[in-house]
Amino acid sequence: MADHNALPLVILAEKFASLPGIGMKSAQRLAYHVMSMETAAVEEFAQALIDAKKNVRSCSCCQNLTEREICPICDDSERDKSVICVVESPKDVTAFERTREYNGVYHVLHGLLSPMDGITPDKLRVKELLARIAQGAVEEVIMATNPTVEGDATAMYVANLLKPLGIKVTRLAFGLPVGGILEYADEITLFKALENRNDM
Amino acid sequence: MADHNALPLVILAEKFASLPGIGMKSAQRLAYHVMSMETAAVEEFAQALIDAKKNVRSCSCCQNLTEREICPICDDSERDKSVICVVESPKDVTAFERTREYNGVYHVLHGLLSPMDGITPDKLRVKELLARIAQGAVEEVIMATNPTVEGDATAMYVANLLKPLGIKVTRLAFGLPVGGILEYADEITLFKALENRNDM
Repeated sequence: MADHNALPLVILAEKFASLPGIGMKSAQRLAYHVMSMETAAVEEFAQALIDAKKNVRSCSCCQNLTEREICPICDDSERDKSVICVVESPKDVTAFERTREYNGVYHVLHGLLSPMDGITPDKLRVKELLARIAQGAVEEVIMATNPTVEGDATAMYVANLLKPLGIKVTRLAFGLPVGGILEYADEITLFKALENRNDM
Repeated sequence: MADHNALPLVILAEKFASLPGIGMKSAQRLAYHVMSMETAAVEEFAQALIDAKKNVRSCSCCQNLTEREICPICDDSERDKSVICVVESPKDVTAFERTREYNGVYHVLHGLLSPMDGITPDKLRVKELLARIAQGAVEEVIMATNPTVEGDATAMYVANLLKPLGIKVTRLAFGLPVGGILEYADEITLFKALENRNDM
């Protein structure tokens, strides 16, 4: 925005533009939209940003984002703790929960291996997964990373760590469109992929 | 998001989804992105929202958004105060300033007439325009609303108010693609439209 624009608006537009998928033009529109919102609504928005950052942490068990020490899934006595579904991100947990067909628990890696981008195994929550398995109750680990190069590499890496421990390691069936993004799969495709999982 | 998600994240995603042009899926992604930002950056974002809403007001002269009592354009002694370009919104001022060819001043209506949506003349900053003209120094008013039904109706309405006062009222030349949005016109088209403006 040119310098005839009010500085706080320019700053706000820049903040919006720093978010993924929002260009400068949209950011400007959003900043103008904020001006037309009620003061109370703007304050609630600001508070929601701060609350989410301050009050949401990783579950000490599965590493999914939660506001408690242990997330509701890990804390649910009805869930089968002997099966762990390993995913890249919290979005993927949401995708699986939508199928309403999975009754095990999760482990969120918070990323995929990508040595070119400096994402080595120590950057992922792999240690935490090994610690859970060391407790002994786990029978199967389902590798549910995206069917991409990084997703496959990560699944292979984790599988190679776990197999010597005598854990059954499976991979989602390639009912998923190869090269696609797990998060956008429809419920049935995702359920089929879960049902036809293979040993690896 | 399902109820296994942390509540502050659900609330934040809803806030993002309440903004124009952001769906629930994008809003969820943005909320997760905020989790990966530094705490200081999140606090700056929250502060930018509050500052923009608190410190930006309408210029008491042209009604454009500014952090001062009088905006830099109205306050600039080099600008020709005898020509007022009437626009729908602050975004349009930015578009004209990009042409670098206009040396008059602006008047921002903050909307267009749309009786179906309850936007009647009293909802626009028309009174403020009449008050400026009553001060006597204005020779020409350029109606620079979008070339749409609402834009044309608003231009006609304002023109009919001003012509009995002996003010020259012009309309942007229809070099603009009819039905288009002023904000997206390129500089040259907008400059041509300004240069070929017609009496109305």
